Amino acid sequence: MNNAIARLISPRSVAVIGASSDPTKTSGRPVAYLQKHGFEGRIYPVNPKADRIGELPCYPDIASLPEVPDVGIVLLGAKHAHTAVRALSELGCPAAIVLASGYGETDEAGKLRQEQLLQAAGEMRLLGPNTIGLVNLTERIVLSPSGALAIDEFPVGNIGVVSQSGGILGSLLSRAAARGIGLSKLIATSNEVDLDLADFVDYLAEDASTSVIALYVEAVRNTDKFRAACVKARSMGKPVVVFKIGRSEAGARAAVSHTGAMAGADAMYDALFRQVGIIRAQTFTDLLDISAALATRRKLLGKRVAILTSTGGAGTLVSDDLGLGGFETPAPDADTAAALRALQTGSEAVLDRNPIDVTLAGLRPDLLRGAISTLLASPSYDALLVIVGSSSLAQPALLVDPIEECLPTSDKPILAYVSPHAPDVAALLTRRGVPAFAAAESCTAALEGMWQVEQFQVQQPSSASEHVSPEIIASLPRGVLDETQAKLLYQQFGIAAPAEMVVTNIEEAVLAATKLGGKVVLKILSSKITHKSDVGGVAVGLDATTIGPRLTQMSRDVEVATGERPQRFVVQAMVNSGTELILGMHRDTLGTAILLGMGGVTAELFQDTTMRLLPGEATRPMPLSHAEAGEMARELKTWPLLDGFRGRPKADINALTETIVNFSRMVAALGNHLLEAEINPLFVLPRGEGAIAADAVVVLTEGQSSSSKPEPSSMVTQ
Amino acid sequence: MNNAIARLISPRSVAVIGASSDPTKTSGRPVAYLQKHGFEGRIYPVNPKADRIGELPCYPDIASLPEVPDVGIVLLGAKHAHTAVRALSELGCPAAIVLASGYGETDEAGKLRQEQLLQAAGEMRLLGPNTIGLVNLTERIVLSPSGALAIDEFPVGNIGVVSQSGGILGSLLSRAAARGIGLSKLIATSNEVDLDLADFVDYLAEDASTSVIALYVEAVRNTDKFRAACVKARSMGKPVVVFKIGRSEAGARAAVSHTGAMAGADAMYDALFRQVGIIRAQTFTDLLDISAALATRRKLLGKRVAILTSTGGAGTLVSDDLGLGGFETPAPDADTAAALRALQTGSEAVLDRNPIDVTLAGLRPDLLRGAISTLLASPSYDALLVIVGSSSLAQPALLVDPIEECLPTSDKPILAYVSPHAPDVAALLTRRGVPAFAAAESCTAALEGMWQVEQFQVQQPSSASEHVSPEIIASLPRGVLDETQAKLLYQQFGIAAPAEMVVTNIEEAVLAATKLGGKVVLKILSSKITHKSDVGGVAVGLDATTIGPRLTQMSRDVEVATGERPQRFVVQAMVNSGTELILGMHRDTLGTAILLGMGGVTAELFQDTTMRLLPGEATRPMPLSHAEAGEMARELKTWPLLDGFRGRPKADINALTETIVNFSRMVAALGNHLLEAEINPLFVLPRGEGAIAADAVVVLTEGQSSSSKPEPSSMVTQ
Repeated sequence: MNNAIARLISPRSVAVIGASSDPTKTSGRPVAYLQKHGFEGRIYPVNPKADRIGELPCYPDIASLPEVPDVGIVLLGAKHAHTAVRALSELGCPAAIVLASGYGETDEAGKLRQEQLLQAAGEMRLLGPNTIGLVNLTERIVLSPSGALAIDEFPVGNIGVVSQSGGILGSLLSRAAARGIGLSKLIATSNEVDLDLADFVDYLAEDASTSVIALYVEAVRNTDKFRAACVKARSMGKPVVVFKIGRSEAGARAAVSHTGAMAGADAMYDALFRQVGIIRAQTFTDLLDISAALATRRKLLGKRVAILTSTGGAGTLVSDDLGLGGFETPAPDADTAAALRALQTGSEAVLDRNPIDVTLAGLRPDLLRGAISTLLASPSYDALLVIVGSSSLAQPALLVDPIEECLPTSDKPILAYVSPHAPDVAALLTRRGVPAFAAAESCTAALEGMWQVEQFQVQQPSSASEHVSPEIIASLPRGVLDETQAKLLYQQFGIAAPAEMVVTNIEEAVLAATKLGGKVVLKILSSKITHKSDVGGVAVGLDATTIGPRLTQMSRDVEVATGERPQRFVVQAMVNSGTELILGMHRDTLGTAILLGMGGVTAELFQDTTMRLLPGEATRPMPLSHAEAGEMARELKTWPLLDGFRGRPKADINALTETIVNFSRMVAALGNHLLEAEINPLFVLPRGEGAIAADAVVVLTEGQSSSSKPEPSSMVTQ
Repeated sequence: MNNAIARLISPRSVAVIGASSDPTKTSGRPVAYLQKHGFEGRIYPVNPKADRIGELPCYPDIASLPEVPDVGIVLLGAKHAHTAVRALSELGCPAAIVLASGYGETDEAGKLRQEQLLQAAGEMRLLGPNTIGLVNLTERIVLSPSGALAIDEFPVGNIGVVSQSGGILGSLLSRAAARGIGLSKLIATSNEVDLDLADFVDYLAEDASTSVIALYVEAVRNTDKFRAACVKARSMGKPVVVFKIGRSEAGARAAVSHTGAMAGADAMYDALFRQVGIIRAQTFTDLLDISAALATRRKLLGKRVAILTSTGGAGTLVSDDLGLGGFETPAPDADTAAALRALQTGSEAVLDRNPIDVTLAGLRPDLLRGAISTLLASPSYDALLVIVGSSSLAQPALLVDPIEECLPTSDKPILAYVSPHAPDVAALLTRRGVPAFAAAESCTAALEGMWQVEQFQVQQPSSASEHVSPEIIASLPRGVLDETQAKLLYQQFGIAAPAEMVVTNIEEAVLAATKLGGKVVLKILSSKITHKSDVGGVAVGLDATTIGPRLTQMSRDVEVATGERPQRFVVQAMVNSGTELILGMHRDTLGTAILLGMGGVTAELFQDTTMRLLPGEATRPMPLSHAEAGEMARELKTWPLLDGFRGRPKADINALTETIVNFSRMVAALGNHLLEAEINPLFVLPRGEGAIAADAVVVLTEGQSSSSKPEPSSMVTQ
């Protein structure tokens, strides 16, 4: 663990630069809140205009401080903050927090200020700028002016929070407190001029008081570091839950003006999160919902949920939503039903169905305890969801106590849905270890999150090892390859293409068609024209008798469309069967990804694609493993088309998997030399017959190596 | 308006049968709550074991009551309730509420009890059984033991609620109260042995104190009545919002055991709701969210939303979600931006983007007022969303007052998102006319609901009028038609089929192929085998030279698969172009619907279908209009395939629309005589070339008329 970060989060002494004696002002709050929440270390307000801040002596400047503080909170505006930062750094202070806005999130001048701030910090670590600071609930240390800290007491728990927005940190702090959800540490990283998301995920992975990590993300700025920190957290048994905005264009645009964050494509984040086992919350509310469920450290080992209710309507509502989420709510097995009946609940009780309706038993703790322990012990269920109805509100203990007493008897998840407005009952349940929710969707999301945690398996990196020597790179063509060159490159990496011949005139074309036999495809061959169909440069279903006139017509069409008469053509054996896919790469700020999609216009309308980021460091990517490639195919919504849907022949999945891996080997090996690569269509033939790249695009860099010249070692993949 | 219903909801005198003097018991609550909430009429407790209930004299039996009460609340169990119901009816009481459970929702004995209860009621109207009663907040009359009524004060407003679950009524009551959402009346219909959902929608449509109707639905039991009531509400300018469960199989199963409701297919409800202009809430929370927004009676006339914030993170979060929901958050136009700048907000303010970040102006009411009225007046925006951050919590009036002052200046919707946990501020805003939400998804759902209300246009019923005489019905074949018979029937309704000939041997087949010319399809012709492909009974792409041997092989294949050698075949001109669709019908408890879906396996995987219930009464359905048919096609996710996607030829939409209307004419005209009908595939050819039913299924009743013998008039459609 980084020592400066540890001191930043657990300081024994804090200097507050620009502290005001007016606790209603933002600049008056940090000192007031430190005291209010019981900070036991030393507080040094710094302000040339004040002698005392409350009881505390106030220092005129940083140089006058009686000791080097563990952390400095800089409350000055953007014009002066860097001066204080420099002074703290010169003093040897390990870390500072800069609250001012007006930096990278604004304009060019702001970006420059941000750069100056970083230089002023020197060796000192910086949190911010534009941050609301951090809150260490475990040790009652609050380094923040957040209005949420006006609350007197916070439930302390095992969920660590990192937010890339200060306002959202305040929102999570107050929302969690109201719901009885205990947090350990909260850190707002905001502009991340120095310390970022990944630094604090790494910190929380080692923090003994944290067992779940919840993140509010606008953009991951350093994929490698983030990935490493998340993998570390998982290896420590700590699930990571993320809510990420920038899912729509409007949100992505807003994020840039908020913290200056440039996010990559949202689908890339989906891939990244899936690959490192991060649970992605679909709504902001879910971020706390899922975290609260995971904080119980209970394990969901199946999808069968028992719903115990005393109010039919809410039971129906919750089972309906669980059903939508893919959970099952089976009726009790015979033994469980008999055990429930033996409890002799009221005559109105419905015990042989699920929801299990105990009607009036909600007011009889002994019966409730019996029903809960019966359901927890039942082999029919993997989790228990208790519905809290209006009847429990007058004396919540009659409901809460029996549930709590049953907790130690089982490791299965136990959640609660609170049907009436009863936030106090929900908070009481949550504090006692039974996460309680006010929305059916929250119950489903929480269980889904618990399920995903158990499903994740660390992918073994591909064992493929290869070396593309600088000589081979040097021997490659430059820029846009034509189709034949591209296929040759693919073939070097083991990707099959149809038999084909390059021709320049009718005679050669007829000869080629004769030689290839059967139906052939005629295409223009050009490194300038990438969308051949659009200019009339593709014709299918030809043979030796029809290819001649078609070539003449194609020459004319292409000349009309492009102004240039095509000189070369490819005659290609036509692929007559198989399923059409698209295999490509995508590179943005997050890294390099392999994209697999179903081909054809219908699938395109449904955007049926999936992505995987290449593992390894961004500058030294590794190929995908066969397991990952196989998973990609199975993730397609149209996977059944490859899997024998409606009597279709099963496709050659092995060949598809092999092609995806080989494609990723090529992308990894060529690194920054490769700008674009796509196979469209990739035909996957029936089982045992292979997969064939029927068309190919490759764009390489123009120079011998790319601008960010990779080291030779970056070409070694393993 | 039904007089008994009016007296049920606004009684001047209430008898409480089985009232207890213990207000903590369920049977003690109705009298206690009537008094607590200020009922000004007369209360008559009935209980042979008590002389007084509190201050009130108690009557030994119903016969002893001093007057005929407007309503009787029956608190007795299922064993005795019918006795009290009979006595009330004999007294001439207009309506009674039966709370007991143990009726239709349980078993056969319960169903019988429910039938007895109805008979005991005679002329008297019944609410329930298994209900929690009703709450008339407008007049402070509560006829319910719901624990939610322990709350002292409820905001009174213009949202009327009907719930098919009693527990959910309590949940809505307490949740709305906590959020400052004003309700008018709440009625729980539950088992609906007599009065149902539609009765109260009809009542609320005329209720002067209600302007939005919110429904919690498990199943619509009488489609015609429900449809009429909803149309009436819409014609009175009152939007209807529905949350319906039974979306998943688990939920549908639970609903049966909850109130005995058998729901139809959820997609049928979607169609029904869409057709009558009902807004469907996607979550239970949305039911109140959308209703609260509509209760302002403001109109959303476009999709451009201004977000005014003092906290960047929450603004980003909300704009991200609005973007996902299809709303736009454009930057202010030049004039609006200039007007904002002229307000001279703080230097940190970001005014030329959206979210419009006023940073510190949240604490300066004058600036806030200026910004709000500028944005409301701006031609760039159709709605305003104000973000409430932590900074507003200490003095909410500084935020709430300026917003409220601006309300009269504009008819545009104004909503609020509250970022920290601050339910009191949210409730204050909502009570003052600015619906406030704690989730970004709620803001989006509320705006989407407002948008849908403005989009709905009442469909003019089809003007097609026709009469299928009993003679024609009598002349139709019976049972399963073979493909040729089915196509002949379709052709009578103007639906085109390919040229085809029926053959019995090779010679006739060759002759037919020669006559038809081009490529042909060979199919077995049988009224027994409906899935011809599955038994090897379909071959495509044949001609006169290949059809002979193929027929021989088909005979053999089908005999192997079915044990019977096929005797007759169809030779059909092959359709070589066009887009493949499926056109069919679906009938369940809700009514009869026309189903349109994209054909082909890929679209099938995405379940790309849409439905329309036939208009008119269930027993006298009318055809779809051309406008409705056209809308169906455009609702398909794969509509672009018909509309020239990626350079495909535009399809003959007119012919498709005509075919849908004609198909619906046939379904309407044949009424109950028709059991099944499907065209699969329906080929829609390029524009001007028509639409062709390439295969056809029709199943008619076996007898001359169906079991529920339709009147001759039911065959007349107009």
